[in-house]
Amino acid sequence: MQHYFMDQALTVGAEVSLPTAIQKHWLRVLRAKPGAQAEFVDDQQQVFIGELMDENQGTIKIVLQTDHDAELPIATTIACGLPKSGKAELMVQKATEMGVAEIIFLPTEWSVAQWKHKAGKKVERLQKIAHSAAEQSHRNLVPKVRYLDRFTDLLDVQVDQRVVAYEEAAKRGEVSELVRVVTKMQPGQRLLAVFGPEGGLSPTEVKWLQDHAFHVVGLGPRILRTESAPLYFLSAMSVLSELK
Amino acid sequence: MQHYFMDQALTVGAEVSLPTAIQKHWLRVLRAKPGAQAEFVDDQQQVFIGELMDENQGTIKIVLQTDHDAELPIATTIACGLPKSGKAELMVQKATEMGVAEIIFLPTEWSVAQWKHKAGKKVERLQKIAHSAAEQSHRNLVPKVRYLDRFTDLLDVQVDQRVVAYEEAAKRGEVSELVRVVTKMQPGQRLLAVFGPEGGLSPTEVKWLQDHAFHVVGLGPRILRTESAPLYFLSAMSVLSELK
Repeated sequence: MQHYFMDQALTVGAEVSLPTAIQKHWLRVLRAKPGAQAEFVDDQQQVFIGELMDENQGTIKIVLQTDHDAELPIATTIACGLPKSGKAELMVQKATEMGVAEIIFLPTEWSVAQWKHKAGKKVERLQKIAHSAAEQSHRNLVPKVRYLDRFTDLLDVQVDQRVVAYEEAAKRGEVSELVRVVTKMQPGQRLLAVFGPEGGLSPTEVKWLQDHAFHVVGLGPRILRTESAPLYFLSAMSVLSELK
Repeated sequence: MQHYFMDQALTVGAEVSLPTAIQKHWLRVLRAKPGAQAEFVDDQQQVFIGELMDENQGTIKIVLQTDHDAELPIATTIACGLPKSGKAELMVQKATEMGVAEIIFLPTEWSVAQWKHKAGKKVERLQKIAHSAAEQSHRNLVPKVRYLDRFTDLLDVQVDQRVVAYEEAAKRGEVSELVRVVTKMQPGQRLLAVFGPEGGLSPTEVKWLQDHAFHVVGLGPRILRTESAPLYFLSAMSVLSELK
């Protein structure tokens, strides 16, 4: 069943006009006919089943509210050093499938890429990728994509716990901190995880993060590429908080 | 430090000629000079440090044996329904980073792609991707890539436990079987996990797998794309067996 995000409140029984983008996809591309059903997520992250009434006017009737909840119990923000060209798209798509709440890109000491004046356009494009990945993976929300100008702006991200994935920690055999931090958290709390770009984070950056209450965590004994580490991390968040 | 696979036994003190491919990469591309060091994995998956002696003759001296072990304690084979064009490459690269032991591609009822006579060339190309990803992620072995002609050949894969990732199970809220199966396994044992192509596995295929001792497991509440499900699964194997 298709899954679409609506910018409004929905209630069972309501008749609603579909926004142009959804009409275009569901009615023009997929050629839905009256009686066809799809999932519609309202502005409160509630998921409803809507039935197409009139394909020319693009109106639906909300027939059912579901209890669909595909969000990680611990809302997880990932902050990634600017990766090389083309990687950000893959990261946003896959992190969205894996349940990320928010994706931040920011310059780090060893980033080769620079976004600067291109950041606005990049974020806009990545936000569209997040939107379509959130539809595809049946999320209750579209993760927000943001660009931060300065590494130190990380301190403005309001969360309950902070971690940094650091390859050198993994090399030293650090295998317990991630589990320890996550299993102590409660559903509804928020976590921020920082990842380096291709060259990694600098020791200065890691030291600074540690000085600001970030826990250094290892992600197993293999060296993961920049775009793979957040995916391992988000899978780990799911295993530790959603599987039993 | 670079990480290369050698097809021979190595011992500390031995002087060894490098194969052409390693000479080309380390000496020509990276311009290593005498005294430079790299990791060399021997045919027993042991990792040694070798020092370049003569850049023209391409000879190294093995100076040290390490205890580097980057392999999942439970050797994990993934078997994937033939994915759409271009996905297999990403799956092999990322699964190798995530620690897979063996990657099988095979036709399933709802696969759109067909490999047939192209299978030999495809596997050869994917094997090269696995090789370079194994170097990059500092693995102790290069995962083997294989093509099976028939779905039922899965029964010939010799393992200790078998699971199938099934979206419909996840939709019904199945969240405990993966943890249950994996935490009962011992280091050194082998596991086979089956994943559907874009359209998923057919109910007939899932029923057949269940009849042949495959446990049906869910991978959390989000719908994962074909290429993402094995990555979630391998991360889960790491979290459940390598983190504490």
